[in-house]
Amino acid sequence: MKHDRILLAHGGGGSLTHELIERVFAPAFDLGAMDDSAVREFGGERLAFTTDSYVVQPYFFPGGDIGKLAVCGTVNDLAVQGAQPLWLSLGLILEEGLPLADLEKIIASIQKTAAEVGVTVVTGDTKVVERGKCDGIYINTAGIGRVVSRQPVGGAQLRPGDAVVLSGPIGEHGIAVLSRRAGIAFQTSVVSDCAPLWQMVKILLASGADIHAMRDPTRGGLATTVCDFARASQVGIRLQETALPISPAVQGACDLLGLDPLSIANEGKLVVVCRGSDADQVVQALRSVPLGRGAVVIGEVIEKPKGLAVLRTAIGGERIIDLPTGEDLPRIC
Amino acid sequence: MKHDRILLAHGGGGSLTHELIERVFAPAFDLGAMDDSAVREFGGERLAFTTDSYVVQPYFFPGGDIGKLAVCGTVNDLAVQGAQPLWLSLGLILEEGLPLADLEKIIASIQKTAAEVGVTVVTGDTKVVERGKCDGIYINTAGIGRVVSRQPVGGAQLRPGDAVVLSGPIGEHGIAVLSRRAGIAFQTSVVSDCAPLWQMVKILLASGADIHAMRDPTRGGLATTVCDFARASQVGIRLQETALPISPAVQGACDLLGLDPLSIANEGKLVVVCRGSDADQVVQALRSVPLGRGAVVIGEVIEKPKGLAVLRTAIGGERIIDLPTGEDLPRIC
Repeated sequence: MKHDRILLAHGGGGSLTHELIERVFAPAFDLGAMDDSAVREFGGERLAFTTDSYVVQPYFFPGGDIGKLAVCGTVNDLAVQGAQPLWLSLGLILEEGLPLADLEKIIASIQKTAAEVGVTVVTGDTKVVERGKCDGIYINTAGIGRVVSRQPVGGAQLRPGDAVVLSGPIGEHGIAVLSRRAGIAFQTSVVSDCAPLWQMVKILLASGADIHAMRDPTRGGLATTVCDFARASQVGIRLQETALPISPAVQGACDLLGLDPLSIANEGKLVVVCRGSDADQVVQALRSVPLGRGAVVIGEVIEKPKGLAVLRTAIGGERIIDLPTGEDLPRIC
Repeated sequence: MKHDRILLAHGGGGSLTHELIERVFAPAFDLGAMDDSAVREFGGERLAFTTDSYVVQPYFFPGGDIGKLAVCGTVNDLAVQGAQPLWLSLGLILEEGLPLADLEKIIASIQKTAAEVGVTVVTGDTKVVERGKCDGIYINTAGIGRVVSRQPVGGAQLRPGDAVVLSGPIGEHGIAVLSRRAGIAFQTSVVSDCAPLWQMVKILLASGADIHAMRDPTRGGLATTVCDFARASQVGIRLQETALPISPAVQGACDLLGLDPLSIANEGKLVVVCRGSDADQVVQALRSVPLGRGAVVIGEVIEKPKGLAVLRTAIGGERIIDLPTGEDLPRIC
């Protein structure tokens, strides 16, 4: 390890997070393919299991709050594994002095979002720490789902000739959160895209299209997703810059803050890699639900460069998409 | 609710935690019997699911550390539901600046303890927050187990005539942690009892004794366990003060600090409620493993007072065992 103390970037979902996982966690644990959920046999069925902690700051933001995020993020990690979400656990860490009204609002948001997805919170735990040892509220949700996709989907299943499809415009969650953050507040109309993806995934799986991988491009954004996929499958991925859906408001905020929209977190978008000839079918399936009406093909899987993702720019050049370091955007989820 | 802001006692496992659960969480979620784990059908088998967050301070203490605790606590919540622990999720919240060597030591401890129990960490997540927004490291583990006990075990299954058995001396975890805490450090030989209970529970279940309820008396100690049981089953519980195993070192520390040993957290003890005629069999089964060699009968289930636990004192009087408020011992687990 290059550092002897934990840096904010170790939690950013980029290269330092990967280093921590590879050097410290992977040798100790049974993390397998390191997709968004672990899949195991239970009672003759395939069970998907996942966890995420949420430390987003501020905990209320345009388009959502930490409670909605804690349901969507975990449910989406099950959905992209081809699993119907069933049950959630809820672990709360509260800061002494947190207004009870804020907690009640967050719990109501969890309840509402869970009901939308058809998932239930079945077990929970609450800890309280002294003032200054937390930032209002941190939430962990773990989720259990039933895998319904017939074939394995995951980052290691990509093949040259596959198409890369994205369900809508990128960067909205990250920019919405940043716009309300103490110290860097700025005016924008951007609202978080935070939403549960299961209904869209269900329709996609039922469409019969040949799906190889799905992911919700959260921390580290679309850049981290395509870098992970290219590495896990040892293929190249080429994205077309002109095809990437980015709203003028997100692009403007990124220009202002010096951020790359490809590295910004999304919380209600789906990246789908499918057999190339099924790309139109996938786009149509995604567009059949409101969440996916902006779905487009954004790139393709190629033989080389093995393990790397590249961006074909608007002026015809090509650049390698780097795995973000994770330094730009702490506590976005 | 009597308070409009969160207090430390809301996380203490006592009456304020109960109030929070009953007023805020229970109406929103599907928490059922509120035993240590939720039990659901999956693939024709019974699956147990539980979660706990760990915020113990300091994170290294005599007899253990936050990593060992995060495995034992969650695995024990599955075990007391009559479930064989199978898989854990691991959610880390790290403070910027945490020494990497401390993290590696904690991860090694998780790995070692998980291997002892035969459980595997299959999925995880890491977040990092700024200095001063955490206290080194907070850990969430959620656990999945397979229920193997033939009959339902839980706080609502107690019947008058049942015996209450305890696997060994109480108060060791809480006193060990307190002895190293900044501001109240004192000399003691007490070491945390933190240990996984599954092997002992497995032997107990195989003994054929008629088990009605099991619990690991953690936050809120033995007092919270018997108060919960009495209320859930609407029976009385009478404990014999002279039968309670308490080491002189724990008793001395409690006298010094003005604490009641009944309210102090344990992390490697088992309370078993069984048919009265099976009490000896339960004691023998517990004593057959090193962890349970101090097992004794400590009380009985009675008709009245319904919903209350009482302590028959050494001098022959009787006092009601109050549910602790949770104010004494923040961040003990």
